[in-house]
Amino acid sequence: MSLVVQKFGGSSVADAAAMKRVAERISLYAKAGHQVVVVVSAMGDTTDELIDLADEISPNPPPREMDMLITAGERMSMAVLSMALNEVGVTARAYTGSQAGLITDNDHGKAQILRVTPGRVKEAVEDGAVAIVAGFQGVSHDSKEITTLGRGGSDVTAVALAAALEADVCEIYSDVDGVFSADPRVAPSARRVPLISSEEMLDLAANGSKILMARSVEYARRYGVPLHVRSSYSGRVGTVVSDDLERQIPIDPTVTIRTADVARRDPADPSKELTVEETDPGLEAPIIAGVAHDRSEGKITVVEVPDVPGKAALLFDVVASSGANIDMIVQNTSTVDDTVAISLTVPEDDAAAALDAIEKAKEAIGYSEVRYNPDIGKVSLVGAGMKSSPGVSATLFQALGEGGINIDMISTSEIRISVVTEEARLDDAVRAIHSAFGLDAEQTEAVVYGGTGR
Amino acid sequence: MSLVVQKFGGSSVADAAAMKRVAERISLYAKAGHQVVVVVSAMGDTTDELIDLADEISPNPPPREMDMLITAGERMSMAVLSMALNEVGVTARAYTGSQAGLITDNDHGKAQILRVTPGRVKEAVEDGAVAIVAGFQGVSHDSKEITTLGRGGSDVTAVALAAALEADVCEIYSDVDGVFSADPRVAPSARRVPLISSEEMLDLAANGSKILMARSVEYARRYGVPLHVRSSYSGRVGTVVSDDLERQIPIDPTVTIRTADVARRDPADPSKELTVEETDPGLEAPIIAGVAHDRSEGKITVVEVPDVPGKAALLFDVVASSGANIDMIVQNTSTVDDTVAISLTVPEDDAAAALDAIEKAKEAIGYSEVRYNPDIGKVSLVGAGMKSSPGVSATLFQALGEGGINIDMISTSEIRISVVTEEARLDDAVRAIHSAFGLDAEQTEAVVYGGTGR
Repeated sequence: MSLVVQKFGGSSVADAAAMKRVAERISLYAKAGHQVVVVVSAMGDTTDELIDLADEISPNPPPREMDMLITAGERMSMAVLSMALNEVGVTARAYTGSQAGLITDNDHGKAQILRVTPGRVKEAVEDGAVAIVAGFQGVSHDSKEITTLGRGGSDVTAVALAAALEADVCEIYSDVDGVFSADPRVAPSARRVPLISSEEMLDLAANGSKILMARSVEYARRYGVPLHVRSSYSGRVGTVVSDDLERQIPIDPTVTIRTADVARRDPADPSKELTVEETDPGLEAPIIAGVAHDRSEGKITVVEVPDVPGKAALLFDVVASSGANIDMIVQNTSTVDDTVAISLTVPEDDAAAALDAIEKAKEAIGYSEVRYNPDIGKVSLVGAGMKSSPGVSATLFQALGEGGINIDMISTSEIRISVVTEEARLDDAVRAIHSAFGLDAEQTEAVVYGGTGR
Repeated sequence: MSLVVQKFGGSSVADAAAMKRVAERISLYAKAGHQVVVVVSAMGDTTDELIDLADEISPNPPPREMDMLITAGERMSMAVLSMALNEVGVTARAYTGSQAGLITDNDHGKAQILRVTPGRVKEAVEDGAVAIVAGFQGVSHDSKEITTLGRGGSDVTAVALAAALEADVCEIYSDVDGVFSADPRVAPSARRVPLISSEEMLDLAANGSKILMARSVEYARRYGVPLHVRSSYSGRVGTVVSDDLERQIPIDPTVTIRTADVARRDPADPSKELTVEETDPGLEAPIIAGVAHDRSEGKITVVEVPDVPGKAALLFDVVASSGANIDMIVQNTSTVDDTVAISLTVPEDDAAAALDAIEKAKEAIGYSEVRYNPDIGKVSLVGAGMKSSPGVSATLFQALGEGGINIDMISTSEIRISVVTEEARLDDAVRAIHSAFGLDAEQTEAVVYGGTGR
């Protein structure tokens, strides 16, 4: 018997029919004897509809009241899912975030979890009931107000409960089969990554992969919670995110295996072990987890900044104070005078505030001009294996060069290379890199699993 | 400065536009310096939609989960109304039933209030904020579960808060101008009753008047809370339900008067006192509060019940055990044998269960036959003054006789006469009685206010 936390969101719980389907899936685990805790998002477009309703009332509603309003969405879905489970003969009890012990700070709209005291949830599963918990919400420690956890909040709820309950696995269900070696809409030959380390997953998430928010992955890493990202529409094995290869995790109502063996299981039939011939080859090749891309950033270039100590620092300080998250920075020293040009990328949503702040500090910084270009794209190659493989960056730049794709900015870490290109060529860049590293599904020398050093 | 509890329900908060209108009205009280607590129902058809959603999932959802689901409706409306108030410059804070201290028993779907501990609401109004409370819901004392208060639950929430906060008045807003001397849809000449005793209001409510549930009136009477039933669509004075004629109540943001003087105020302009000529006459006439009617009951007749001690008692016991509320009972002794026929009225919704229970007890009771007639109607004349006016019942029966309306059953109390007729003649009966007692608006000898013995 395992304790399994399952999170269902978005389209998986869009309407009554979807709820019934999800309830059937949960019931397989419950009937197999597992303890099950389910975190659920709001049904379909409920949250957007509630936000629209608030917009009709006020352009700037008080955050406390906004949280009260939108948490109603998850309350409805938790109650409905609990009903659906009881209807298929599985005892279930629904709990709000507050009842489930999600204690947060008081930062309405983007609260942080302070601690989790899941006494009632624990009691429910020990009684043999499935506990359904409303995602995305908590209660503030000091003022006992209803809070929301911000973007990706339901995933974080699931991970936090899994950590507090010492669950064997936290399954994140959505409408895709797992983490892919690139976005299949851009690179149709992308393939599922069966196993990936949390570090790689963090880098993918930070560089545009939408499947998991970095916040949830960080939380899972800190508490050693194995994640399993999978589809609610099939029984297929998805992607396991784990740093502990010896950990036993249930991947099916009746199959529990070592995480190290996930890539050797038939995804369509987890009870079946693949032979060496059937398993994808390339175990000894440089390990690439995948290619991520991101269209959401824009580039700010500040021209003719005096090349004296403190000026660049002041610029970064001014941008950070505007609330904009700086991602990449490139500085070019002028060859004609004592100035530098500084380029930095920020989320497009933050650009207006950043530009405004830079404009206000023009005199203090002493630059001559600011330019802004929203039409950039970033492609990132992520893989724990690349730190010991010197040829990786050469292969990447060669692939881009052969594709005639200009490189605007570059940043690297031990397990990642990111390149900024013009936005119009981003998809080409993703496909070129994906092919160059043998990730395409039809290539025989493919490296098909996220590297974990093996 | 007064403490005013205001309850808005149904169509008053149907959509964003309605919410804004309600917020404007509330703001008048807040800006005039009153402390204001607002209880709000779910917006428009939200509750019905949530019930439909549950129906799609399960024919018989667990009551606990059902309460969790439908309480989301009031949570949304409380948050939206709070936003709307803040938007018009009035600080407001929304509270769930649980946060507002509505402590109930654990009877999901129809919980009773055990006590009210409105610490946070009190704090909010003392801070100068308007407190918005979700109606219809509470939290159970022992298991800390979310409960709902059943039909009329939002009114009860308002009255309970008014009692606990020792409010000066509890205003119940709806889409009608107050309590009328009959249902204006049946008797178009019906007029508003400015002042009525709680006893009369209870009798009207128990006999078909929909404007207030008996439960709320009982609660208000027990704790001496003056009620003011009025329209959210106008600033008009409605109907005050109070037994304390000397009590000072605010009837307008800026006007506070003795309840005894309510009938002497211009409803359209509460700051204006009517002259004796302008006030409706009839102060010394027998006091009739109004005519209520009810189509929701059916009549069960049990034929040839042995006329021996204990048989009738057994019948009533059997019906009560089925969960049916018996309203009227008539027993006719047979002139040909030692049997009696017993007729009783029950809500049509309870009739199937009652008939089933009677059928099962056929041998024990020893009757020969049961008949059921859903096509009955009940008309009731209510007024505290009738107990000292011997001519009242004569006038009533004469009116019905002249109208050719057959009387099927009769029951009376000190302040009420109820008559069962065939359902098809019920409207005629209401109009005939309304006219006979001079209640029609165009009649000069009208008795226009609810009697309180004056």
